[in-house]
Amino acid sequence: MGLKSFVEVHPDSHFPIQNLPYGVFRPQPGSDPRPGVAIGDYVLDLSVISAHGTFDGPILKGSDCFNQPLELDVNLGKPGFRPDMHLRPLDVPPEPNLNKFLAMGRPAWKEARASIQNLLSSTEPKLRDNASLRQIALAPVGQVEMLLPIAIGDYTDFFSSMHHAKNCGTIFRGPENPIPANWFHIPIAYHGRASSVVISGTDIVRPRGQGHPHGGSPYFGPSVKLDFELEMAAIVGPGNELGKPIDVNKAADHIFGLVLMNDWSARDIQAWEYVPLGPFLGKSFGTTVSPWIVTLDALEPFACDAPKQDPQPLPYLAEKISKNYDISLEVRIKPTGEENSHVVTKSNFKHLYWTVTQQLAHHTINGCNLRPGDLLGTGTISGPEPESYGCLLELTWNGQKQLSLGGTTRKFLEDGDEVVITGCSKGNGYNVGFGTCSGKILPSPI
Amino acid sequence: MGLKSFVEVHPDSHFPIQNLPYGVFRPQPGSDPRPGVAIGDYVLDLSVISAHGTFDGPILKGSDCFNQPLELDVNLGKPGFRPDMHLRPLDVPPEPNLNKFLAMGRPAWKEARASIQNLLSSTEPKLRDNASLRQIALAPVGQVEMLLPIAIGDYTDFFSSMHHAKNCGTIFRGPENPIPANWFHIPIAYHGRASSVVISGTDIVRPRGQGHPHGGSPYFGPSVKLDFELEMAAIVGPGNELGKPIDVNKAADHIFGLVLMNDWSARDIQAWEYVPLGPFLGKSFGTTVSPWIVTLDALEPFACDAPKQDPQPLPYLAEKISKNYDISLEVRIKPTGEENSHVVTKSNFKHLYWTVTQQLAHHTINGCNLRPGDLLGTGTISGPEPESYGCLLELTWNGQKQLSLGGTTRKFLEDGDEVVITGCSKGNGYNVGFGTCSGKILPSPI
Repeated sequence: MGLKSFVEVHPDSHFPIQNLPYGVFRPQPGSDPRPGVAIGDYVLDLSVISAHGTFDGPILKGSDCFNQPLELDVNLGKPGFRPDMHLRPLDVPPEPNLNKFLAMGRPAWKEARASIQNLLSSTEPKLRDNASLRQIALAPVGQVEMLLPIAIGDYTDFFSSMHHAKNCGTIFRGPENPIPANWFHIPIAYHGRASSVVISGTDIVRPRGQGHPHGGSPYFGPSVKLDFELEMAAIVGPGNELGKPIDVNKAADHIFGLVLMNDWSARDIQAWEYVPLGPFLGKSFGTTVSPWIVTLDALEPFACDAPKQDPQPLPYLAEKISKNYDISLEVRIKPTGEENSHVVTKSNFKHLYWTVTQQLAHHTINGCNLRPGDLLGTGTISGPEPESYGCLLELTWNGQKQLSLGGTTRKFLEDGDEVVITGCSKGNGYNVGFGTCSGKILPSPI
Repeated sequence: MGLKSFVEVHPDSHFPIQNLPYGVFRPQPGSDPRPGVAIGDYVLDLSVISAHGTFDGPILKGSDCFNQPLELDVNLGKPGFRPDMHLRPLDVPPEPNLNKFLAMGRPAWKEARASIQNLLSSTEPKLRDNASLRQIALAPVGQVEMLLPIAIGDYTDFFSSMHHAKNCGTIFRGPENPIPANWFHIPIAYHGRASSVVISGTDIVRPRGQGHPHGGSPYFGPSVKLDFELEMAAIVGPGNELGKPIDVNKAADHIFGLVLMNDWSARDIQAWEYVPLGPFLGKSFGTTVSPWIVTLDALEPFACDAPKQDPQPLPYLAEKISKNYDISLEVRIKPTGEENSHVVTKSNFKHLYWTVTQQLAHHTINGCNLRPGDLLGTGTISGPEPESYGCLLELTWNGQKQLSLGGTTRKFLEDGDEVVITGCSKGNGYNVGFGTCSGKILPSPI
């Protein structure tokens, strides 16, 4: 693609004009959150360009999905103009999340993408040649605060990597039949905790809870088996009514895009609590997502065939086109006080056995209603090789071996460790990337 | 208690002046939802009485938790006055749920209770002697539409009845060690689905999904083992910050009140999907709650000792006072076309092994944050006798026996069955009751 932006974008950047991921940010401390799009090292303020009439297509014209004010101040762009005072009525803050936009569906998303791509293109003078508009519309990404881009009604976590399912089964239940009988028929999932989903950069307090050593009594204390999980998550666009399932072949229209996700896990708490109702406190102390939602439209050039499914799924899960995306994933750990982080695994989104569209269709087949902004985690994305396992549980085989981190080693996470996930699809001369999803472990309260 | 209201309350009513449960209602179709309190056969409109200056205590005076308008129209109560046109600015609807009030905590709840109890008492003329105010403040309960009283951020379901745990374990895993080893140490729970929690009276569509008969292949179709679960749920008041657990001895201050709950369950779907991550689609097609939240303050006269716990719980779960409530519970089924419903079980809230305060403290011990309006289900409340089991799975021993319903029988629920849960505490000359929690089964989509 020869499309170029007038905004300078480094060739290694995750955010060229081909990407245009959506997030929510504060331009400065204390200012109202607002939707934005990443372009190179800048964030484009959608509330500003919306006020400037950028979204003039048939669907978005007049919509307040980014909080387009009713009237455009005539002084906009003139010297001395202070947009915060004039752009909108005092008591109507900008839209604080993307949920309204997500609810509008793919036609609106495509129109917004075309409008933004046009505004940012090197041949379009509207923003390029208006210095004072550029000053209020483009904020250096290093100066803004990124926030959770969506209000998450419900968060569901799937278990869709066969390699992960096999490794976990082998570790916990032994090498004979490590994968439960239902796994090849059902995209297995559990309901997660929405309240503790946090934005990348939020510290994670080491959870306390009960553990139960072999042969001993249950004890209480800080988790001694704190882990990360390399995941991605789909963000739901338009939902469905209770009792009205979504067809698997229409499921893609209900997915806005993907984020990186770290589903922090306390393996000792999880192992003791999870029978018979599944993970609870071993997971609910925190889940980190990356700030930028990369749309399925931007990922389309990186679509690839999903793994062949055997046995054939039941008809309600059989897709005409079974699609994954080629997204390289990497996890690094940076111990406290060290300069450098160390790569601990490299995996890829394309390893998922169950596709995100199958996950979504399965989720609704019983009539369960999804809502815009719902989060569907993929589960840990492990590849076939030991270097591509997606969590320490697998990488150290539940603490049986050490993982080397330069001069030190890890079985599980230590206080002060920062875990950084990155994800990127490499195109012809450009990337479509996700930036990073990071979090640092703080010690438990005494 | 000799307290009486000027509103006539039948001795059998669940809603005398000693109760005063909170809900949200529409006075007529299309009108804005608003908070209300049940009194006898009426609903007291809190937005109206708030506008009338009822809440003049130090905490609630000037608060907009029920959306108190800024100025009281001077014509209020005069003949010909139309309150909908004058009581509030046109663009500020009344508070559509109780979350803001819940967040204010027990001192505000106690103040509101005292103000409402005073306003409704037989000796207070303010409302009693103002016919036109009564007309707008008190709506006959049969004429209003009840709505979900809270915006539920997260819904968690516990598993706190020992009898239920034992019966389920025996049915699914056999009579040797039916209760998992962790059960007596941990208030076991799973994250539920918030989006599909519905208000009493909402029809429930029979879910479709995968089942897996012994020795057969998985099949897809309408659930053939549709069940109810007799539960109650605590509504969270003030929450906690992520990483900051709530002490078990302060947990009661974070619970506003209780509702009845039916955690509809598709046993065939659940049995096939729940290993290893717990219940998912077997539950998420619908959960029904009763419209009236009965406060812990109203339930206090019915407090009783919780069962003795052996082994002693770990210190973070050890309560100075371990309290249950004596609330009689009953489930009736009304088959389609029949005049009468049939009692299928009688149980009691006091059978719970883990208290709601232990549930709440456990939920936060890992740092998980609760938010106002969160719903904490107790799990199925089964008593020790077969007549007190809380679901058909137990009552028919997973379909091995028939349950008699007058002229017909049931193993599991049939299309058209209406399930009605009631709950009531009987005081000296008055009840503190929950009304009903009902739902009717509609057939699966073709």
